[in-house]
Amino acid sequence: MSAYYQLEMDFMRLGHLEDAAGLLHWDAATVMPAGGADARADQLATLNVLHHQMICDPRLAARLDAAEAEAGLGPWQAANLREMRRLWRHATAVPLDLVEALSKACSRCEMAWRAARPANDFAGLAPLLAEVLGLVRQAAAAKAAAFDCAPYDALLDEHDPGLRAADLDTLFDELAGFLPGLAEGALAAQAARPAPPRPEGPFPVASQRALAKRLMVAMGFDFDYGRLDASDHPFCSGVPDDVRITTRYDESDFMTALMGVLHETGHALYDRGLPGDWRGQPVGRARGMGIHESQSLLVEMQACRSRGFLKFAAPLMREAFDGAGPAWEPENLYRAYVRVAPGLIRVDADEVTYPIHVLLRYRLERAMIDGRLEIADLPGAWADGMRDLLGLTVPDDADGCLQDSHWPDGAFGYFPSYTVGALTAAQIFDAARQADPGIEPAIARGDFAPLRAWLTANIYGKGSFLATDDLMVEATGRPLETAPFRAHLEARYLD
Amino acid sequence: MSAYYQLEMDFMRLGHLEDAAGLLHWDAATVMPAGGADARADQLATLNVLHHQMICDPRLAARLDAAEAEAGLGPWQAANLREMRRLWRHATAVPLDLVEALSKACSRCEMAWRAARPANDFAGLAPLLAEVLGLVRQAAAAKAAAFDCAPYDALLDEHDPGLRAADLDTLFDELAGFLPGLAEGALAAQAARPAPPRPEGPFPVASQRALAKRLMVAMGFDFDYGRLDASDHPFCSGVPDDVRITTRYDESDFMTALMGVLHETGHALYDRGLPGDWRGQPVGRARGMGIHESQSLLVEMQACRSRGFLKFAAPLMREAFDGAGPAWEPENLYRAYVRVAPGLIRVDADEVTYPIHVLLRYRLERAMIDGRLEIADLPGAWADGMRDLLGLTVPDDADGCLQDSHWPDGAFGYFPSYTVGALTAAQIFDAARQADPGIEPAIARGDFAPLRAWLTANIYGKGSFLATDDLMVEATGRPLETAPFRAHLEARYLD
Repeated sequence: MSAYYQLEMDFMRLGHLEDAAGLLHWDAATVMPAGGADARADQLATLNVLHHQMICDPRLAARLDAAEAEAGLGPWQAANLREMRRLWRHATAVPLDLVEALSKACSRCEMAWRAARPANDFAGLAPLLAEVLGLVRQAAAAKAAAFDCAPYDALLDEHDPGLRAADLDTLFDELAGFLPGLAEGALAAQAARPAPPRPEGPFPVASQRALAKRLMVAMGFDFDYGRLDASDHPFCSGVPDDVRITTRYDESDFMTALMGVLHETGHALYDRGLPGDWRGQPVGRARGMGIHESQSLLVEMQACRSRGFLKFAAPLMREAFDGAGPAWEPENLYRAYVRVAPGLIRVDADEVTYPIHVLLRYRLERAMIDGRLEIADLPGAWADGMRDLLGLTVPDDADGCLQDSHWPDGAFGYFPSYTVGALTAAQIFDAARQADPGIEPAIARGDFAPLRAWLTANIYGKGSFLATDDLMVEATGRPLETAPFRAHLEARYLD
Repeated sequence: MSAYYQLEMDFMRLGHLEDAAGLLHWDAATVMPAGGADARADQLATLNVLHHQMICDPRLAARLDAAEAEAGLGPWQAANLREMRRLWRHATAVPLDLVEALSKACSRCEMAWRAARPANDFAGLAPLLAEVLGLVRQAAAAKAAAFDCAPYDALLDEHDPGLRAADLDTLFDELAGFLPGLAEGALAAQAARPAPPRPEGPFPVASQRALAKRLMVAMGFDFDYGRLDASDHPFCSGVPDDVRITTRYDESDFMTALMGVLHETGHALYDRGLPGDWRGQPVGRARGMGIHESQSLLVEMQACRSRGFLKFAAPLMREAFDGAGPAWEPENLYRAYVRVAPGLIRVDADEVTYPIHVLLRYRLERAMIDGRLEIADLPGAWADGMRDLLGLTVPDDADGCLQDSHWPDGAFGYFPSYTVGALTAAQIFDAARQADPGIEPAIARGDFAPLRAWLTANIYGKGSFLATDDLMVEATGRPLETAPFRAHLEARYLD
């Protein structure tokens, strides 16, 4: 048996362990009773240890060397081998004791954060957060050595293979150049029109769920291969033949849960469309967080938060909630739910100001990883940034640097993917519409098949065959740029 | 680190793998979309392979030898080590290629059985069933060599450690001696009374679920540490701090689902009450299938299918379904749901004739394992047995030897635990009532705390510390007998 073929067996089993762990996480977030938490953590820790032992087994390293010397691999096999090497490098770069110390420090800090945020207690969290940052710096340094790049670049690479801070600097500088003005223009345009009335609830959960499922089916979600459930924080997980998405319902506002469902459905369609011939292999997995986020934002922000989609969906919404009156007209729903409103909280931010929240976090976390910013100085730096970038005064840490769980959870280098995703979504949707002018008219009829067909051919079905840059050039003709996103925002918000 | 302590680490991880696999099975039976089946089977196969590799690792065998030579183990540690050796012996007795061949043959045969039963196609299933039997015979022979016992005894030991056919012969011969006469007497007593009317439905699923949960809470089930869900076949799984039970609802009959819930709650209370200091270790697990089944039957048949319990539960049932009239009186409900009705189907059988169904299967499967009965002769042997034991003519194989999935699934040696459980339940409930005369009056008030306290002290909290026989002698003063079961049936059915 060739070394390459043995590696396919190895990574198939590694994938099964990851998928099993994924289901254990899904269960914990959706249906697990509270008392099961400790036992679940133990089960997951064991799966992680076994995964680490398998991927760090010296025999696997020897197979990688041997396979890279073998001739005759096809292009997908070669790409698969490249991805295996990348995963192996990430897994082996950090010593096991550091992995375990980091895992425990993050668990402690994330648990403490849940209490610290409502109590606005940054001082209480600071020592734990400093411990996490110290360990993340060590891990980043170890990965930087293995990848021959800067420490922050090594963290980016975990979430978004090939993404480098130098590229992000260019993109974020451009965004910083035009977004504040664009937000002002949008606010002025809004102020010039009467405020659109919002549909009034209550909106029963059962009706929200039924409507969400109806729209998911219209978008091509197949319930023989996936589920919709409820959880505190919406997410998408599972495997391509069993994709699990969640949302969170609020009976006083149906649109947040519904747009959340459409967002997660974008993730789900990507997972479901990954190349069937490469199930369970690294090359058959999603390309990275930036592309994954682009697929959710493409569906939610580009396709569904549009006049066309609302022409199709508004009557279904009205019917679902027995609505009546002008609030339920498509144009009004469009105006009511496409608005700019600068605020302190990232997860509540609109499409225009969201990247500014990410820019702030990007600058701060880069400085923290590079050793230019310590935890004690974080609240001040946060307040300065919010004032400079959004003109807002931060009243307290709860609505400032304590608002996200990412850093307490050790996730440094993750935030940029949200904005990379937004830029990527605009550029890909643009290319899709140009390639098939029937895509947008079909969406206005509730028919997502043309969009899905183009995405399957150009994004979903490529898995991790191409590097992200190459995927973008093949799909859109150009590397990632800010221009399509800018054009999209100007068309939508300055009109 | 002592060899014993290293073994605790080994078996803790083995336990986590088993628990993770258990959750994957639960998910597949309750919420998984159909399309996820293949991916789930792959995940489970990998967890099984890793489990087998871990337990068959020569280093683990060396630790067992070393630990058995170590001095100074406490009694629970010694019992834990004894259980580790037993699990190791079962896992290593059968070569991996035979394990895999058996697993695949069982999957194929069980899938084929799902179609063969409704089609009454024994001839179509026979070759697959013969293949399973051939492989089970090989596995039983390998285990018999490892355990120095007869092949069928080795299969019994998998499900019920220490149980031997010689003991079963005694018990089943006694049952065969008095059950047919007892059934006749019960039928005569029933015929002498007017037939009790049954409550009339429909019984909405939501009301059934709410009632079931209310009674579960009364019995001490804590929903912070467990769940109730629906599945095609009711079962109990999970871990002590997260016990998952299921039932199957029928809107024309609420009692079947409810009694199923009470049965599974008995399993759940046992799991939940296992010794907390030994979570995840072999000695902290349930003693065996016979004891496990005894705990479900104790709750369902001894405690809940009683006049006392129905005095408490009848008003709740009536309220749950807005019932009215004499059908809802406690005495009528008792009469309506405690009846003897000999029939062809085991899962529909009453308490008196159920052991006769098991006796038939016990005799047949023993003959199959010993080579005295071949698959081709099974339908005839089945028909003969049903005529001799229950006086019934078997019209077709669908209601005969095709009715159960156990043999297609490779589960030979499992059936006896149902009847061992029934006998054990009667004997344990008897001992509990004698030890605490307040148990039965409390149940009639819906208070299960006294029963639970006695079971926790004498059964639940013992885990696998004692051998089953010793557990019975300590808890009831005697080894397992048929007399308490007989007395229970005579009191209930000949009155």
